[in-house]
Amino acid sequence: MPIKSEAATKRIYLDYNATTPLDPTVAEIIVTNLTEAWGNPSSLYPEGVKAKNVIATAREQTAKGIGAVASDILFTSGGTEANNWVISSTIEHFKQRSQAESKLKPHIISTTIEHDAISLPLSHFREKGEIDVTFVPVNKERGFVTPEDVVNAIRPNTCLVTVIMANNETGAIMPIAEISKLVKERNSSVLIHTDAAQAIGKIPVDVGLLGVDYLTIVGHKIYGPRIGALYIKGLLQNGGAPLYKIFHGGGQERNLRPGTENTAPIAGLGKAVEIASDSVKEFAAAMKMTRDHLEKRLKDDFQDAVVFNCASSCRLPNTCSVAFIGKNREGYNLVKKICGFSCSTGSACHANECKPSQILLEFNIPFEIAANTLRLSTGRETTVADIDKVVDELKHLLLP
Amino acid sequence: MPIKSEAATKRIYLDYNATTPLDPTVAEIIVTNLTEAWGNPSSLYPEGVKAKNVIATAREQTAKGIGAVASDILFTSGGTEANNWVISSTIEHFKQRSQAESKLKPHIISTTIEHDAISLPLSHFREKGEIDVTFVPVNKERGFVTPEDVVNAIRPNTCLVTVIMANNETGAIMPIAEISKLVKERNSSVLIHTDAAQAIGKIPVDVGLLGVDYLTIVGHKIYGPRIGALYIKGLLQNGGAPLYKIFHGGGQERNLRPGTENTAPIAGLGKAVEIASDSVKEFAAAMKMTRDHLEKRLKDDFQDAVVFNCASSCRLPNTCSVAFIGKNREGYNLVKKICGFSCSTGSACHANECKPSQILLEFNIPFEIAANTLRLSTGRETTVADIDKVVDELKHLLLP
Repeated sequence: MPIKSEAATKRIYLDYNATTPLDPTVAEIIVTNLTEAWGNPSSLYPEGVKAKNVIATAREQTAKGIGAVASDILFTSGGTEANNWVISSTIEHFKQRSQAESKLKPHIISTTIEHDAISLPLSHFREKGEIDVTFVPVNKERGFVTPEDVVNAIRPNTCLVTVIMANNETGAIMPIAEISKLVKERNSSVLIHTDAAQAIGKIPVDVGLLGVDYLTIVGHKIYGPRIGALYIKGLLQNGGAPLYKIFHGGGQERNLRPGTENTAPIAGLGKAVEIASDSVKEFAAAMKMTRDHLEKRLKDDFQDAVVFNCASSCRLPNTCSVAFIGKNREGYNLVKKICGFSCSTGSACHANECKPSQILLEFNIPFEIAANTLRLSTGRETTVADIDKVVDELKHLLLP
Repeated sequence: MPIKSEAATKRIYLDYNATTPLDPTVAEIIVTNLTEAWGNPSSLYPEGVKAKNVIATAREQTAKGIGAVASDILFTSGGTEANNWVISSTIEHFKQRSQAESKLKPHIISTTIEHDAISLPLSHFREKGEIDVTFVPVNKERGFVTPEDVVNAIRPNTCLVTVIMANNETGAIMPIAEISKLVKERNSSVLIHTDAAQAIGKIPVDVGLLGVDYLTIVGHKIYGPRIGALYIKGLLQNGGAPLYKIFHGGGQERNLRPGTENTAPIAGLGKAVEIASDSVKEFAAAMKMTRDHLEKRLKDDFQDAVVFNCASSCRLPNTCSVAFIGKNREGYNLVKKICGFSCSTGSACHANECKPSQILLEFNIPFEIAANTLRLSTGRETTVADIDKVVDELKHLLLP
């Protein structure tokens, strides 16, 4: 089997939506700062000042990359923390604000295609009886949520609308700017969050154009480190989006997210956001070229035996959600047979989960199609030759 | 001024209780894994499996270093998160357990000399009316808490005793094993936590001997990365210490601390704990030798113009809390004048705080002495020559 042995020498990675390798420039910055900026950023002597300055630079870079100002950025341990924080914080804000007013629970609006780091905390707080939640369903064909459906879900006690910017499995891009506009027109006190983990570096992300109050940034999806950041509009300013402490401790991150700062990865995140933002057009064009080539080749070679999920949507340029029709072609089994490349069935973020993706089942996608789906996501360095090898192996495995 | 110019060429670091540089072996492991184990640990293909294995090794190392088993270790973003988690989790456990039983609030016992990452979350929950707290005062001369005082504070609704293992400012070591023994004898359902951030790598730390249910591990105090870990006795086993999710998301860390794992720093933490544990005797001896030399030289040269805080305590081998008696000798001002070495006034973990340390004021230390205190903490690589230079500069600055 020539394909196997050739592929074994250099596996092709096609799961950039799961995680990305470090950009070499980012890696260099992290490594340098691990040994050079190791002082405690709270210390007043040179070792501390140096680390503090490194963090300030990273905060500027992170902010600039999404059209924000540095004072609106707080660093977190990752996207999960940032998403959980927005939810717990807006619930707390509602409680503080409405203490004397009513006995209504806070109400949060989201969608049926969020990442677990949004859907599960919402379900948790709902189960505890602390909040009401509306998960607005998405358009069954094209995979995006309709702004009017979001606005129509608003209640007097709605405190937060949180909608993923681009879905990790289908790549479908949500109309966040329109949602924000309509929501704020209906009730300007409703806060708006978007998880931009999959969007940054693939499509332009500008908090001003999006009109959001909070935005989640994740390093490891943009060739950066395994930490994240949260944008909070006008943090601590009059009229700015509210934020309550996630932890209590040593006063770091404006005393809202204490803990000695993780300087080197923070420096890396700043650079990763800067690179992702500065070169988003080039990256998007390159990823789209290889993704489109992949879909064309699959269609040419497999004809009616492939179905592309949400392909008519406004999609991320790098994401291909494809099902291979037929028996014994479940994504989970297929992945085990593939030797030459790495890809995902559904989302890789779900430890030890092998069920068909709940996200895909939200659409008009039959169970068998969802079960047979692979997610192939291209990256900055994916080549046409890589794609050809991938399709060749799929043909070898699946075609007679 | 020869001292200034000489010192400027190579600053001496004497603030190892604030943070430590990376051990070269640890740095190498982090750097290697940043580029080689970047796959998503939840992915089933080789890139993911490799990362998963790296984390499994680190969990073994971390566990072994404190006498635990791997299944009792969860990785966190740092000590602040770990400490906050234990508190919120034990409060939740009390609520779940006593829902039908009583309307008593959970009661937590701690001490007056905890790190802010314990004292402030406790104060926060108390202010919100969610818990009762007893901060047991320490022995005014020697800086440690008396086990009997802790036990006498137990109430029917006590759910947690959390006592720092070694204080970061004075180095005073708390009698955790005795506290655990007496507390469990009085009421075996009371859970016991210790924050071992400052202890690991300086004194032996064995969870079995300590008898604790939870223990906080912090990488950057032991020449490791800026992440942490939490030991939970018998996690998920029958009769094990309870733990509730800190976040909700993708299922990682037994679904208790979700978020894509920070593989490379986790690998580094495992190695850092291993090194700290394996060589604790040698490290302690080396640090004690230079710390004792420092105190002897200061005493010889400054005579009655120096006071050592808590020096008669059972102390960490590396910590010297020293006050220089006299006017215009406030620690904060002194630190600004020092050119050749780095040290701390009180704790460096408190961003932009310049008040005399609240911890020191807990003892029979007059305000002026507390205000004039420097914390000098030696490290593995501190030399006698370093200490001599430090004392020479202090003499130059303070003696006529």
